[in-house]
Amino acid sequence: MNSDMTFFRDNIEKMSAYVPGEQPADLAGVVKLNQNENPYPPSPKALAVLREYDGEQLRLYPDPMVSSFRRMAAEVVGVGADWILPGDGSDDLIIMIARAAAGPGRPIAYPVPTFPFYFTQGQIENAPLVEVPAGEDFSLPIDKLAAADAALTFVANPNSPTGATATVEQLDWLAGKVSGLLAIDEAYVDFADAVVMDLARRRTNVIVLRTLSKSYSLAGLRLGFGVANPTLMAGLLKTKAIYNVGPLPAAVGAAAMADTAYHDQCVRAIRAQRTHLAEALAKRRWTVWPSGANFLMAAPPGGDAKAAFEALKARRVLVRYFNQDRMRDKLRISIGTPQDIDALLDALDAMAAKRT
Amino acid sequence: MNSDMTFFRDNIEKMSAYVPGEQPADLAGVVKLNQNENPYPPSPKALAVLREYDGEQLRLYPDPMVSSFRRMAAEVVGVGADWILPGDGSDDLIIMIARAAAGPGRPIAYPVPTFPFYFTQGQIENAPLVEVPAGEDFSLPIDKLAAADAALTFVANPNSPTGATATVEQLDWLAGKVSGLLAIDEAYVDFADAVVMDLARRRTNVIVLRTLSKSYSLAGLRLGFGVANPTLMAGLLKTKAIYNVGPLPAAVGAAAMADTAYHDQCVRAIRAQRTHLAEALAKRRWTVWPSGANFLMAAPPGGDAKAAFEALKARRVLVRYFNQDRMRDKLRISIGTPQDIDALLDALDAMAAKRT
Repeated sequence: MNSDMTFFRDNIEKMSAYVPGEQPADLAGVVKLNQNENPYPPSPKALAVLREYDGEQLRLYPDPMVSSFRRMAAEVVGVGADWILPGDGSDDLIIMIARAAAGPGRPIAYPVPTFPFYFTQGQIENAPLVEVPAGEDFSLPIDKLAAADAALTFVANPNSPTGATATVEQLDWLAGKVSGLLAIDEAYVDFADAVVMDLARRRTNVIVLRTLSKSYSLAGLRLGFGVANPTLMAGLLKTKAIYNVGPLPAAVGAAAMADTAYHDQCVRAIRAQRTHLAEALAKRRWTVWPSGANFLMAAPPGGDAKAAFEALKARRVLVRYFNQDRMRDKLRISIGTPQDIDALLDALDAMAAKRT
Repeated sequence: MNSDMTFFRDNIEKMSAYVPGEQPADLAGVVKLNQNENPYPPSPKALAVLREYDGEQLRLYPDPMVSSFRRMAAEVVGVGADWILPGDGSDDLIIMIARAAAGPGRPIAYPVPTFPFYFTQGQIENAPLVEVPAGEDFSLPIDKLAAADAALTFVANPNSPTGATATVEQLDWLAGKVSGLLAIDEAYVDFADAVVMDLARRRTNVIVLRTLSKSYSLAGLRLGFGVANPTLMAGLLKTKAIYNVGPLPAAVGAAAMADTAYHDQCVRAIRAQRTHLAEALAKRRWTVWPSGANFLMAAPPGGDAKAAFEALKARRVLVRYFNQDRMRDKLRISIGTPQDIDALLDALDAMAAKRT
């Protein structure tokens, strides 16, 4: 190795590690609305599969494609099983896509603000990064993303931390304009009206990502899947670790996806609570943006979001503050149970009473 | 995107996907000695943790560093907790290391034959690959690896598929000679006498990889860890997916590592059966190479390993045949229970009787 080289690649030396949302060691008494976790437990049927799982099977290597999960996911989203790419959470899928498609001379484009992991993966792949500011109303900047025509375009739809949700027509238009891959991250889609899954079937360059972390209440299970046509799948499988998903998450995840009644009930409750929270915040003179996700982006009256974040934290209500452009006057608040929302509103009212 | 570009990077387009060991859908009656799985079940204490796991916790995102597992792994190998890098199996660790350290102008070196995943990762990173043939007796070619002086050198010790095990002194010498990173993959180390963990402490450029897939009987759990000094850790954490390991594998894995009595008992049994199988094969005029792992590399009399592989398979005994240089006259046979070994030997004897 040349003597001026370091142990790591230059782009790795230069980058900083991603800082995840806060996780207090002791959650007792904490209202946790900072990581977009589902406030309801996972499906009882999924928990039963976990309880009854024969742990002795863990002695063996997994089926690399976790076929039974793959079939269930395929059934739920309406594609063939060979269109499903299993991942250790969608992070793993984003890594596979970035490694296969991005690099020097092969840019990654995405709107900002958005999920910062696209940026992280672009840095690791040493890909040119095309950061396209969202519209004034935080809508998806499809014109500019189309003009960027990157080798790989990431769009979270609904987007985090904004909640903005593009229509199927807009994303269809974008897919037709870009000559590279369009990865549409539908982590929050079950809370939205626009479902773009059909684009994975109709457009040769579209991959749709799903996760069981949000609407299925299984963030700790680490399970997601991509949906892509067999040609794209052949490329993506090259960057998949052989045994990236074990049989235990596969079995529990398949049971959760099979329990559509429970899933729909959770989703309905969260959507209703989202409406309730938006109205309650507006009544308290917060600015609330439309959201297709299980959280709201909202700005407190006066715009001192950092102070609101700290004051809520002091009252054991955790929400998310982002120290970045266009976000410093806003908070991202996950949708909790009615009790969580009451606790949040009580804290806000107590804070307001203290100020007056 | 330029019109002559494809959806994937050129090096990805050119490479083939890795083909894992065979996994019959129906294992009933099959003696499975082809993937170096442990023939014994995981620790009963680990299985108890799995059975009693509170699945409702899975609603939450994991602790990114799975601290309780990290502390247990640190205790077992004798380092500080901040020296432990958790991985979704060691594959995930190998990916993190390759992404951080290898690429164009930053070669990966490794001996051949070895675990093919190092090659796969080198291809994905578009790194120059320096394949150094093992010595005539399949010993680790430390002189040539030192001369290659790659940015990243991978050594599996014990090595697969050969079973060859370098000494601590040899690897210490190699670590001192290379100016780049030396990743020592100790997947099989619990079955060997040479434990190089100490080099991770003494050498600034050494990372040691461990897995729970072999000696802990948890190949399906997907859990491994790297051991590296805090300076290396800071670089490697940049390529770690935030939530790559969930709380369930972390809890089960920590319990397995805590149960040292059970672990030692399994390891002792497998080592004794390795000796027994080596002797039994030698008695049948097979050539058997020394192995520090839970498998033997062995060549049948006459050298037609492919025919032996097929004939064993017809008798429902699965072993591993590698269609690659220096391996076509050999098989890799995982060490099973005494019953598995009897079944293998019976099949070999029946095959021999049929030929005469």
